[in-house]
Amino acid sequence: MAVSQLLVPDMVVTMDDDLTILTGTAVLVEGGVITALGDPAELAAAHPGTQRIDLPDRLVMPGLINAHHHSGMLRGTAEHLPVWEWLRLHIDPMHRVLRPEEAEAAAWLCYAEGLLAGTTTVVDMWRYMDGAARAASSLGNRLVTVNYVGEHPDFDYFDTLDDNERMLREWTGAAGGRIMPWVGLEHPFYTDAAGQQRAIAMARDYDTGIYTHCSESEIEVADFLSAYGARPMFALDELGFFDTPHALIAHAVWLDQSEVELIAARGVGVSHNPVSNMKLASGMAPVADMLAAGVNVGIGTDGEKENNNLDMFEEMKVASLLGKLRTMDAAAMDSWQVLQMATRGGAAAIGRGDQLGAITPGRAADLIAVRTDTPRMTPLLTDGAYPNIHHNLVHAVRGSDVDLTMVAGEIVVRDGQLVNADLPELIDRVRSLVPGLFERRSAWLEANADPSGLFHA
Amino acid sequence: MAVSQLLVPDMVVTMDDDLTILTGTAVLVEGGVITALGDPAELAAAHPGTQRIDLPDRLVMPGLINAHHHSGMLRGTAEHLPVWEWLRLHIDPMHRVLRPEEAEAAAWLCYAEGLLAGTTTVVDMWRYMDGAARAASSLGNRLVTVNYVGEHPDFDYFDTLDDNERMLREWTGAAGGRIMPWVGLEHPFYTDAAGQQRAIAMARDYDTGIYTHCSESEIEVADFLSAYGARPMFALDELGFFDTPHALIAHAVWLDQSEVELIAARGVGVSHNPVSNMKLASGMAPVADMLAAGVNVGIGTDGEKENNNLDMFEEMKVASLLGKLRTMDAAAMDSWQVLQMATRGGAAAIGRGDQLGAITPGRAADLIAVRTDTPRMTPLLTDGAYPNIHHNLVHAVRGSDVDLTMVAGEIVVRDGQLVNADLPELIDRVRSLVPGLFERRSAWLEANADPSGLFHA
Repeated sequence: MAVSQLLVPDMVVTMDDDLTILTGTAVLVEGGVITALGDPAELAAAHPGTQRIDLPDRLVMPGLINAHHHSGMLRGTAEHLPVWEWLRLHIDPMHRVLRPEEAEAAAWLCYAEGLLAGTTTVVDMWRYMDGAARAASSLGNRLVTVNYVGEHPDFDYFDTLDDNERMLREWTGAAGGRIMPWVGLEHPFYTDAAGQQRAIAMARDYDTGIYTHCSESEIEVADFLSAYGARPMFALDELGFFDTPHALIAHAVWLDQSEVELIAARGVGVSHNPVSNMKLASGMAPVADMLAAGVNVGIGTDGEKENNNLDMFEEMKVASLLGKLRTMDAAAMDSWQVLQMATRGGAAAIGRGDQLGAITPGRAADLIAVRTDTPRMTPLLTDGAYPNIHHNLVHAVRGSDVDLTMVAGEIVVRDGQLVNADLPELIDRVRSLVPGLFERRSAWLEANADPSGLFHA
Repeated sequence: MAVSQLLVPDMVVTMDDDLTILTGTAVLVEGGVITALGDPAELAAAHPGTQRIDLPDRLVMPGLINAHHHSGMLRGTAEHLPVWEWLRLHIDPMHRVLRPEEAEAAAWLCYAEGLLAGTTTVVDMWRYMDGAARAASSLGNRLVTVNYVGEHPDFDYFDTLDDNERMLREWTGAAGGRIMPWVGLEHPFYTDAAGQQRAIAMARDYDTGIYTHCSESEIEVADFLSAYGARPMFALDELGFFDTPHALIAHAVWLDQSEVELIAARGVGVSHNPVSNMKLASGMAPVADMLAAGVNVGIGTDGEKENNNLDMFEEMKVASLLGKLRTMDAAAMDSWQVLQMATRGGAAAIGRGDQLGAITPGRAADLIAVRTDTPRMTPLLTDGAYPNIHHNLVHAVRGSDVDLTMVAGEIVVRDGQLVNADLPELIDRVRSLVPGLFERRSAWLEANADPSGLFHA
């Protein structure tokens, strides 16, 4: 990493409190941190020895934060099934036979795909997370590791709380702080009461966050009412999930207004995953209500098997579209709101609201350059009566328009190419492992003709 | 155009009646027509002098047919408004001041954007269509021209039926048949009864199709009931719109089952435009019901102002997602159905079902190469228990993965670059024209503080 760099794009979309858009302005990066925004010539003169990076026909904006993801290698092979059959026939048997080297290869390729499309931070609930942390350390992205924990007689084929605690112990703060281990539960029901309490205690003991799927499917509401006599968010609060430094709920589709207000008051974050929610026919999350109540809402792609790509620009577009459809109001879900969710909202949801998500002095230099010399950015207006830069970013741009990605001051994608790994090698590695994974899964399915173990079986 | 070419990709997704996927197979193109599929060496030996085009790490599939589009240059500048305000403040005043040179520049850039993303045929309802026909003639795409006709005292600022008839007379069959003029009406209510009858007669006289927006917004159902005492499709049938060689309805969101059955029986095509329908909060079209009834359904992006890009791969994905959400069934809207809509469905809807939309001998050589050396195509399985090529194409691939586009045997995009135009010049041309268009529109709006004229004002 150069000690200091001066990025000189055509425009800077800062995502600061005033949503300022700057033209003719450079971004000074020193020691991985944004230290100044200002006139390019003046900053260059005041900081001799700085590496100047000219970015003509580019805007610079904060890197995108993918608030919900599972690495994997099942893309397009587990389709067109209701969620229960999907879990029973594809996902859970995969978890039973997954090997650490497969999990690691999947993480490498998924993080690479994300970086190439402008994702600088990813929250990954996945397995054998040492490999994931190694991948992020090498590729250069920021990573919230969330072990996919299932610790229950019926779900004994996921990571364990011991695995999770070891990640917290060994990886917290690694790679210059880019690796951020959290506590994960596949679902609150995937462990027993003792396991839930240990998970909550671990998040407190290590001053970190706890992450779980919840209220993705409508049936979960009835399940929680049956198990706890309360709707899911109230039950989680009662159990202590929200008495943690950070709590983040993936999906949160079936929240009623009282739950929205509860999680706003309790500072609980949400990852909104619109493509996954449509693809799995889960429903339409009350995102506008959450934002109005002050919930920190981020946006997530979910995994390669639920989406099936990892393009946060596409995800922003679908978030906008779904917000408009849900309320049948074309004015709902303003493009600035969507951009904020994908940057500052995600940052706040992972407890890094003061460090990530905007281009302001003092924040980490996590930023991306987006090409403006495209049909998707034509016309491009930043002022006057019809500014459209935010609408273009949300509705027109796609991940392939990103050609530079910087994380903590290190350029990790340049000219649309990975700097720290060879993409064809990452692809070949996954392709070489898929047949074995599928064979072992088929063998397991044959030997276990009627697998059960799902909580609402 | 070479007299004959032999395309040799890794795979061919034929979209034939059996949805055959071929590996190790070449596509022979002679005189712009697909004449054979077979072993590359044998075909090369049997056809000496053929230009061989190797496409390693590529699949070849039929070019996509964008069944609903409006060229334009308002991208991102007319947002977040209910449709009525959107028309009143942005769209209709733009039509009042639009100049032919602006309309032509918009068409050039829009067709270029489409070609670069794999669209070989576009159905464009737009203005001053000579310019659009010139753009397509030069760029190389196939074009159904649909004049944006409004011929009514309240809508006297669109193209006229005389303009439309001149297009039919002067451009039918031009550019080797690539230009296919149709009769267009912005909406059945944008002309009077005499105009409707003249439009219908013109479609018959010139043995072509008639195209109109209908049943995009729920309010139209009440408007038709009030005007004709019948729901929109029954009213159109009664008026004679379907007694034409081809009839195509854009949107068709608010059809009831009786209307679905009527248009299936009458051979009326539909363009389904899921991004537009979400973005303008129009609703969810009953696509599964239409397909089940046998309606020829194509997929359209709508315009740069309703979408805001022209990427048919993204449109396919949203079509799949919206189909699943509408029925709350993850198994709804099979990926093969979606691919068929974007190829054969669109071809049938424009009355070219036997000439376009599949890679089979005798059809036009309209085809695209899609990169397979990407994360989005990893893994890639064409047989076995988990074939995923169709799911990858619908849910993972994006338009930027297309790097070769051929229309009528002519390569018009190679290595991801336009062959017949310079993209930066097309972008610059639009950017130079936008300020003047906006100034004239503002002046018109100032001089007409309370514009009216909308049929349900």
